[in-house]
Amino acid sequence: MKKRETAPILISSPQNASDIRYLCGTEPPEAALLVKIGQRGTLFVSEMEYNRLRQTVRRGISVVHPEMAGSSWKKGPVDWIEKSVDVKKLIVSSVFPVGLAEKLRQAGFELTVSEELLCPQRKIKTAEEIKAVQGSQRAAVAAMKAAIRQIAATEPDRSGILRSGGKILTSETVRATICHTLLDHDCTAFETIVACGPHSADPHERGSGPLCAGQPIVIDIFPKSGKTGYWGDITRTVCRGAASAGLKKMYSAVKAAHAAALKRVKAGAWTDVVHNTAAEEMERRGYATGPVDGVPQGFIHGLGHGVGLEIHEAPRVSPTVHETLRAGHIITIEPGLYYPETGGIRLEDTIAVTRDGYKMLASCSKHFEI
Amino acid sequence: MKKRETAPILISSPQNASDIRYLCGTEPPEAALLVKIGQRGTLFVSEMEYNRLRQTVRRGISVVHPEMAGSSWKKGPVDWIEKSVDVKKLIVSSVFPVGLAEKLRQAGFELTVSEELLCPQRKIKTAEEIKAVQGSQRAAVAAMKAAIRQIAATEPDRSGILRSGGKILTSETVRATICHTLLDHDCTAFETIVACGPHSADPHERGSGPLCAGQPIVIDIFPKSGKTGYWGDITRTVCRGAASAGLKKMYSAVKAAHAAALKRVKAGAWTDVVHNTAAEEMERRGYATGPVDGVPQGFIHGLGHGVGLEIHEAPRVSPTVHETLRAGHIITIEPGLYYPETGGIRLEDTIAVTRDGYKMLASCSKHFEI
Repeated sequence: MKKRETAPILISSPQNASDIRYLCGTEPPEAALLVKIGQRGTLFVSEMEYNRLRQTVRRGISVVHPEMAGSSWKKGPVDWIEKSVDVKKLIVSSVFPVGLAEKLRQAGFELTVSEELLCPQRKIKTAEEIKAVQGSQRAAVAAMKAAIRQIAATEPDRSGILRSGGKILTSETVRATICHTLLDHDCTAFETIVACGPHSADPHERGSGPLCAGQPIVIDIFPKSGKTGYWGDITRTVCRGAASAGLKKMYSAVKAAHAAALKRVKAGAWTDVVHNTAAEEMERRGYATGPVDGVPQGFIHGLGHGVGLEIHEAPRVSPTVHETLRAGHIITIEPGLYYPETGGIRLEDTIAVTRDGYKMLASCSKHFEI
Repeated sequence: MKKRETAPILISSPQNASDIRYLCGTEPPEAALLVKIGQRGTLFVSEMEYNRLRQTVRRGISVVHPEMAGSSWKKGPVDWIEKSVDVKKLIVSSVFPVGLAEKLRQAGFELTVSEELLCPQRKIKTAEEIKAVQGSQRAAVAAMKAAIRQIAATEPDRSGILRSGGKILTSETVRATICHTLLDHDCTAFETIVACGPHSADPHERGSGPLCAGQPIVIDIFPKSGKTGYWGDITRTVCRGAASAGLKKMYSAVKAAHAAALKRVKAGAWTDVVHNTAAEEMERRGYATGPVDGVPQGFIHGLGHGVGLEIHEAPRVSPTVHETLRAGHIITIEPGLYYPETGGIRLEDTIAVTRDGYKMLASCSKHFEI
């Protein structure tokens, strides 16, 4: 750890914008480069970004525009770095742009491409960061409740399509309700999911068109706070009116998997073990995972992911990641089952890992039939 | 050109997600890789994305998940590509991830890093694409009008702070009005600018706090359509109540620069010439550009940028880019002046270049004092 902290690292935006935001304490512009040496750093930005950033960056970070370094925007980053920083060895992340990496090497820089996170400390959230995610999560819960209220207030017509005052309720309408509610909490969401029936069988289908009674409706809301930059993430699945016995059994399996996984969560637990706990709970109840006619079905994604300055960040809770959970990790727990013939069910909460268990960041009840 | 079209290219998401969307006709997931050989392509996605994408991609694109290729997610992209595609030479973009580039080379792939766009054809918009940007631009204009109406409906209190029914009008309130209006047009904006007084002197300051009379208020709205994925971009600067003679003169200079640049726009015009036309118009009127006490001021950014599946894309209209405008390019024209002591003024429209001139994609009048 000591070595990582003192070796100079070079971070690029937008590829690792969240690392720059974390280290500099301010949102970087679209294009920026940060050279970080120990506690000090040099942030390269264009002339037009300079004045704002020099007033908002954390102590220890110098903001530099190319002209200040005796260079120019046109001469490009290799020239800026050469003229401003007295190092020849730099660590970059695996998503650093290959074009710039080649130019730096041609100029004599010795680059080490790290497969690890450049900011592993981002995984352990401070009390302030936990509060920030909690703020976004509360906004997500408010939006979820508004969406569920809107669906619950409908009645199915003869063909099962949900209507309110004669008007058809669509995925788009509910998504608008969600987004307006989030805005009222200074949050924005880009890809909100309101997916009904066959659409719900695809975990990332956003959903469109009329919502129907007796079908699962997956609602997945992940807002970013305009103020803090931190995200929240929640999913509920509801069914307007009576659900089939099969759907109810599937919902119970996902709910039980969610509860079983949560029971395993605490500092010291392994991420893959937590995933497998949920997977086994659903398998034991008869829900198989694997391709049928070439189409993957069952529990076809990881149980969870870190949430912070990015919606998907470390640590991953998945069968292929063997990592110890630590107090301060913020993760989602989101088991799901997806079958093209039946539909999909997913239940997701965002939690902070604690020494003895976890803290639910915002609570929202789970009811299938509404 | 012929060679580019037939040489295999390897495109990664999220780094070049818009290229993948363009070539495949569908939004790629967070992590995806596309190998494109002539008119055919192989899109690698995770199991959970497979079923949706195979149903939505353009003809000629095969969607593959690692298990289908006899590989696994854990084995990583080099293994998927080796098992699915019979090529050893690949062209990648300059922002391709360096870590994956190194692994591909170690496995014997011959990578060429292109400094050029992998999809240069994205610059020339089809009629359908122009319509899509126009849709987002119309949403932006509707939001702009709502914002200006809200500001115009206020009265300053004794200290010059704008109030409506006794309540202080803030950047945040106007931003909320803008975002709600955009949502009603199925558009989302993340970084809307409503910057008053000193804030307006920084082109990318989002703005916060009370709005004041007699000060420039820069309003920059750039929404993305949830339906089409295309962006729009517009900026107006307004002043509630009487502006100083100095501010009015500055506004006139920016407006004249905007008009002068537009007069130059047509297929065959050079981007740097169009930029310089605006710059010279403002300089002639006494507005200098350059650092004062180390802080860049004046016209400190390029005149414009392409707009399409990205908010900032090619072609750039800047003094450092010497490129011919072509019919079908969609660009912004956005001269601006920024002085810490006085504030900032920016006026921006999004236009489609035509053979003889340009087409304004959505019209919105320009009045400073409201």
